Formats: sequence, C-alpha cells, structure tokens
Amino acid sequence: MTKDTRTRMIETTARLLQHRGYHGTSLSDILEQSGAPRGSLYFHFPGGKDQLAIEATRAAVDEATEALRASLAQAKTPAQGVRAYAEAAARLMRETDYTFGCPVAPVILDAAGGVDELGALCKEAFESWTAMLRAAFVQAGMPGRRAGSLALLVVAAIEGLLLIARAYRDCGALMTVAAELEAVVNASMPRRRRVA
Amino acid sequence: MTKDTRTRMIETTARLLQHRGYHGTSLSDILEQSGAPRGSLYFHFPGGKDQLAIEATRAAVDEATEALRASLAQAKTPAQGVRAYAEAAARLMRETDYTFGCPVAPVILDAAGGVDELGALCKEAFESWTAMLRAAFVQAGMPGRRAGSLALLVVAAIEGLLLIARAYRDCGALMTVAAELEAVVNASMPRRRRVA
Repeated sequence: MTKDTRTRMIETTARLLQHRGYHGTSLSDILEQSGAPRGSLYFHFPGGKDQLAIEATRAAVDEATEALRASLAQAKTPAQGVRAYAEAAARLMRETDYTFGCPVAPVILDAAGGVDELGALCKEAFESWTAMLRAAFVQAGMPGRRAGSLALLVVAAIEGLLLIARAYRDCGALMTVAAELEAVVNASMPRRRRVA
Repeated sequence: MTKDTRTRMIETTARLLQHRGYHGTSLSDILEQSGAPRGSLYFHFPGGKDQLAIEATRAAVDEATEALRASLAQAKTPAQGVRAYAEAAARLMRETDYTFGCPVAPVILDAAGGVDELGALCKEAFESWTAMLRAAFVQAGMPGRRAGSLALLVVAAIEGLLLIARAYRDCGALMTVAAELEAVVNASMPRRRRVA
C-alpha cells in the first residue's frame, strides 16, 4: 500500500501539472484528488511540492519518451513512427477530455516554478526526444545534419499541436500536421527507402 | 496619465502571464511591477484579475498578429516571411532574457484559468494566425488544401519552438527549424514562384 499511495500522488501531480500548470497545482488538490492522507505527504516527499513536481515531471517525461521509442520501433519507417506517435497523443487527448498535454510545457511556461532542477529536466526531455528521432532518421539513411533539424521540427510541431488541440478541444489540426510531418520526413529519405 | 496607468497595467500583466502563467500571476505582482496605485485596479478593471488577463492577452495577441502580418507583407515570398517572423521572435526572446513567449500558450496550459472568454480568445488567435498564413500561401500560388495544412504546421512549430527556446535559453533550435520551415513552404510553391 505504501508504494500505491506514493505512485498515486505522483500520477495525480503529473495530471494536475499538465492541466493547470505549476502555480495552479496546490498541495491540497494533490492530496484530495489522490485520496492520500495528509500525513503521507512529507513522509513520502520530504521536499514537499517541489519534490513532487520533479518526480511527477520525470515520470511523465519517461512515459512520453517510452511512447516515442515504441512508436518508432513498431513502425516500418521513421516517418510512419512520427505519425503513430502523434496518433497516440491524439488518443490520449480525447481520452482525457483534453486535459492531457506535454509534461514539460506547463513547467517551462510557469518559469519552472523557480526550481532549477525542473528547468534542467525539461531541457533534458527535449534533448532526449530530439536525439531519439535524429537517430531513427539517420539509421534510415538520412544525412545527419538534415536529420537533426527535422527531429527538432517534429518535436516543436508536436509540442505546439498539443497546445492547439487543447485550445480547439479537437485533434483535427494534430492529425493534419502529423500527415504533413510524415510527408516531410519521408521526402527527406534517400529515394530507395521512401515508402509511397 | 490615466491612460498611461491603464496601459502599463495591461503590459505588465501580459509580461507576467507569459513568464509565469495565469495562476502564477498575482494582482499584487501586477500592481507592484506596473507601479500602479492599489486604488487604480478596480477603477480601471472592475472585473479584477480576469478582466486584466483578458485585455492583456488580447493586446498581446494583436501585437503578435500585427508582427506576423508585417513579416509576411515585407518579405518577397511567404516562405521568407515565415523565417522573418521566427527571427523577430528570436530577437524578442533574447531581448527579454527568455521571458517572452506566445501570449496564448500559458493561458491554455493553465486551463485558461477557468475563464471561458480567455479560452475563446486563444482559439481565435490560432485561427487568425493560421488563416493569415494560409491566405499568404494561396496568394503565392499554393493549392488551398496544402496551404491550410502548412499554415498549421508553421503555427504549431513556432509555438513549440518558443517553448524550446525558453527551456534551452538559446534560439539555435528556433533558427534551425525556421530554415526548415522556409524550405518546406518554398518547396510547396508552384515551381515558377520558388526562390532558390
């Protein structure tokens, strides 16, 4: 049970951060929505809200990283992997009634709550997603430099699309641009590797 | 002087919203940083924080819209206009020590502070930027459907890049992807209109 309470608190924090940002997430909301007893807060998280925010952001980043890795591994081409990742994000958006989002965006936009470790975590997340995409593009035969800038384009566009999807409460734009990204990545592959 | 206090309060609110989000922006911060007397708050903004947030977001959106319009109008091609807009954003990022950002992103990510009018404003902003880019692409000869999805790609990517630039405290990624976007838009133009 100890592990369950801790995990539940981290998951609740991650969800609240994505939905309301760092400053909009209060300790009492976390306790109430995770159903954790008040005493468990400083027992599990002696560092209080900042420790919770760091652990929740790290867990949500790991989950997104794993989803990206799986999308790329399961697809026939990296271009299809990019599209599959966008589709998975769209599904999550709909399932959570548009409260899901990138785990690092709200933390960055709230000036990382003034917590240096949170800021560093966000930077590492972007670096790791970009590196993973770049590696997949290069492995499929794309020249390194192009692969690096396309990887950045994909990360940036998906980041922006999660915002747009939430504002529209609709994933149409997300799926339209996912198809564009697939086409752009595909067109940058050596001809023999392209999939029509 | 009346107008000055009011304008200063709106500008301060816009800056704080971009830097710390809706929930991270307090009325006392707005008063302190705008140097406005406490009594002026409900005199100028009887609707309190929500009215301030709505007017500040609207003013900042109008400024971004005007900057996009100017970038497109002054460039030889829409592709160059996109790049010029990204360059202008990068300049603002550096000048404000990376506290500048998209005026709607923080409001959306803070669940628009639960204020319906703020949510609607964010949606309208995305729609108007996308429509402006689409019109510029179509006017330069791009087929309508492609123009619509490329316009969305550009808006989404720039949105994401502003976040990445803030996380990295560096505009390298912004400029790299701006060059990609310019190339992608240019490659979608009818051949006679392309600029090498």
